[in-house]
Amino acid sequence: MRAVIGVDVGGTTSVAGLVASDGAVLAEASAPTHHRGPGTAVETLVELIESVRGRAREEKLELLGIGLGVPAVVDPSGGRIGGEALHVPELAGRALGPWLAERFGLPTFVDNDVNALALAEWTFGAGHGVRSLVVLALGTGLGAGIVLDGQLVRGAEGFGGELGHSPVKFDGRPCWCGGRGCLAVYASGRGIAEAARARVAGRAGEALLTAAGGDPARITAPLVFRAAAHGDPTATGIVEEACLALGAMIGIVVNGLNPELLLITGGVAGALAPLEGRVLRAAEGFAFSRALARTRIRLVPGDKRLTARGGAALVLYETARAERAGCAASPGG
Amino acid sequence: MRAVIGVDVGGTTSVAGLVASDGAVLAEASAPTHHRGPGTAVETLVELIESVRGRAREEKLELLGIGLGVPAVVDPSGGRIGGEALHVPELAGRALGPWLAERFGLPTFVDNDVNALALAEWTFGAGHGVRSLVVLALGTGLGAGIVLDGQLVRGAEGFGGELGHSPVKFDGRPCWCGGRGCLAVYASGRGIAEAARARVAGRAGEALLTAAGGDPARITAPLVFRAAAHGDPTATGIVEEACLALGAMIGIVVNGLNPELLLITGGVAGALAPLEGRVLRAAEGFAFSRALARTRIRLVPGDKRLTARGGAALVLYETARAERAGCAASPGG
Repeated sequence: MRAVIGVDVGGTTSVAGLVASDGAVLAEASAPTHHRGPGTAVETLVELIESVRGRAREEKLELLGIGLGVPAVVDPSGGRIGGEALHVPELAGRALGPWLAERFGLPTFVDNDVNALALAEWTFGAGHGVRSLVVLALGTGLGAGIVLDGQLVRGAEGFGGELGHSPVKFDGRPCWCGGRGCLAVYASGRGIAEAARARVAGRAGEALLTAAGGDPARITAPLVFRAAAHGDPTATGIVEEACLALGAMIGIVVNGLNPELLLITGGVAGALAPLEGRVLRAAEGFAFSRALARTRIRLVPGDKRLTARGGAALVLYETARAERAGCAASPGG
Repeated sequence: MRAVIGVDVGGTTSVAGLVASDGAVLAEASAPTHHRGPGTAVETLVELIESVRGRAREEKLELLGIGLGVPAVVDPSGGRIGGEALHVPELAGRALGPWLAERFGLPTFVDNDVNALALAEWTFGAGHGVRSLVVLALGTGLGAGIVLDGQLVRGAEGFGGELGHSPVKFDGRPCWCGGRGCLAVYASGRGIAEAARARVAGRAGEALLTAAGGDPARITAPLVFRAAAHGDPTATGIVEEACLALGAMIGIVVNGLNPELLLITGGVAGALAPLEGRVLRAAEGFAFSRALARTRIRLVPGDKRLTARGGAALVLYETARAERAGCAASPGG
C-alpha cells in the first residue's frame, strides 16, 4: 500500500501524519514546534517525520513523498519561505523542501498551510468532487486557499489566496500587515480582539472590560463572542461588523471567482456558525443572486483531522500534476 | 492557412473579424448592433459573420471556428447568456453558440466580452507568454477577465471575473447591480458620473454643473476628469476616490491571486493613465510589497484592434483545451 507523510507546521504545535492515499490517517506524531528551545523548529520537524516514517517502515508501506503546510507565503518556483507574519521565524528565507528531500530521500513539497488545507478539503473533505473551491480559515490570523478548475492558485510569488489581507473597506482601519481595511482587521481573532480593546480602553463599566478583569490586553475574540451572545452592545457591534466584512468577502469570492464551494472554517468560523444566517444575509447584499445560488457556502469549525492531511494532499496533488505534465509533453499528446 | 472568426457584440456596435492564428486581422466588418431595429441583434451578427466568412472563402482559408464576446455573463456549461446588466436584451436566456454552430457549420464559442478580451491579451497582446493575468476593463461599466495558470476563470455559473461588482467598501454606496460599495460605483464611467451628479445636485455655482450647462444629467465621466485636471475640488474628490477604490481592487487581485500581469484598460483607464502614480501609490497601501513587485501593473487605454480578436482568442483557447483533454483521456495519459 502507498502512503504519504503530511506535516502541519504551526507557530505553537506541529503535527506529522502518515496518511493513506484515501486520506485515512494511519499514524500521527505531534510536538511543540520549539520543544527544544527557540530556533529549533527544523529539528522538531525532522523528529516528527522520522517518527511517522518509522511507522511506515514497520507497516511496509511505500512512501510517495512528504508534504508540509507552513504558516507563511511560499515562493512557488524556488520553495523559499517568505517572512510575512511568520510565527516560525527561523524558517524565513529557507527552501525547506529540497533540504528535507535530501535528508529523507523522498520527494518533498512545501506550501502555505491554508493552501494545503484547501487541497485536503478538495481531496479528502467537503470539497471532494468539485472543480473549484475557496477555503477561508478564520483563526487568530486569516488565511485562504483557492482551487480553481482543479488547480491551486499560487500566484507569481506565492501570495495566491492571501484574501485575509485583501481589503473589504478601502478607507477602513489600518491592519498589522501594513495595509488598510483588510478582512483580517474585521473577521480574524486578532482583529476582533484588537477592535474590542480599542473600543473599551479607558471606558470603565464596559462589560467587556469587566469580563477581562479590567485589563484590555486580556480581551480575546471568544470573550467578545460570548459578550455579544449576552447582548453587550459594544461586542454586538464588533460581531455585526465581522459578519458584514465576511459577507463582503463572500461577495468578492462569489462574484469574482464563483467557485462551486466556499468553505469558511477555523475557530472564529466556529464562533460565527450560530450567526450563519446573519453572514449569509450580508453576503446576499453583495453577491449576484444567480452566482450565490451556484456557490455552496459552508461555515464550519475546523476539522482537526485535516491538519496533517493538508501536507498529504499536497503530495498527491503534485504527483498528479507531474503525471499530467508528462502526458502533455509526450509525443502522443 | 487557418483562421478564425472573432465577434465582439456591443450594446451599440458589433464587430466581426477574420483573424489569423497569429492574431493578424485579415478582414473586419462592423455595424450598429440594432441597425435593423430593436431586437435584431442576432440578424446583425449573422450578417457580420457571413461577411467575413465570404472573405475567408475568397482567400481559401480553413476556418477553425467562431468566437463571440458578449456583454453578459455566460453559463459555462450550457452557453446560455445571463440577463444581468445586459445591453442587448434579446440575447438573455439564449444559447447563441449551438444555434450559430448549426447555422454556419462551424464550432462556435460564446463568452463574456472581458473574458474574451483577457484571452486576446494573453494570446496576442500584452500578456503573451505569461501564465496568469487579470484584465480590468474600466468603461461605462466595469468588467474583468481572469486567466490563472493558463486557464480562464469562468466559475460555476459564469460569474468568474465579475470584479467590477465585487465590493471594495462594505459600507459603501449602493450599486445599480443591487450590491453595495462595488468597484464599479467608484471607478466606472457610470459610477463616476453618478457620484458627480449626486454631489452637485441643487448646488448652483458648482463648476461641474456649469460645464454641463446646468443640467446634472449631462455630467459625464470625461467631464469629471477634465474638471479635476483643472483643479475643481468636487471633481478632484471623485477622482481621488476612484484612484483609492482602484488601488484597493489592485490590492485584492495582487494579494488574492498574485497574477504575473494586471492590465487595467478601457476608456476610464485611459483617463486615469496620467494619474498612474497616484493609483499605484494607492495600491501600495493595500498590497504586500513582495507580491506587488511580482505583479506587473499596466494602465493603458483599450486597444480597439483587440475587440474582434477576443472572440478569435476564445476559439484558439477552446481548441487547445480540447486537445489537452484528449491527451489526458488517452490510454497513455
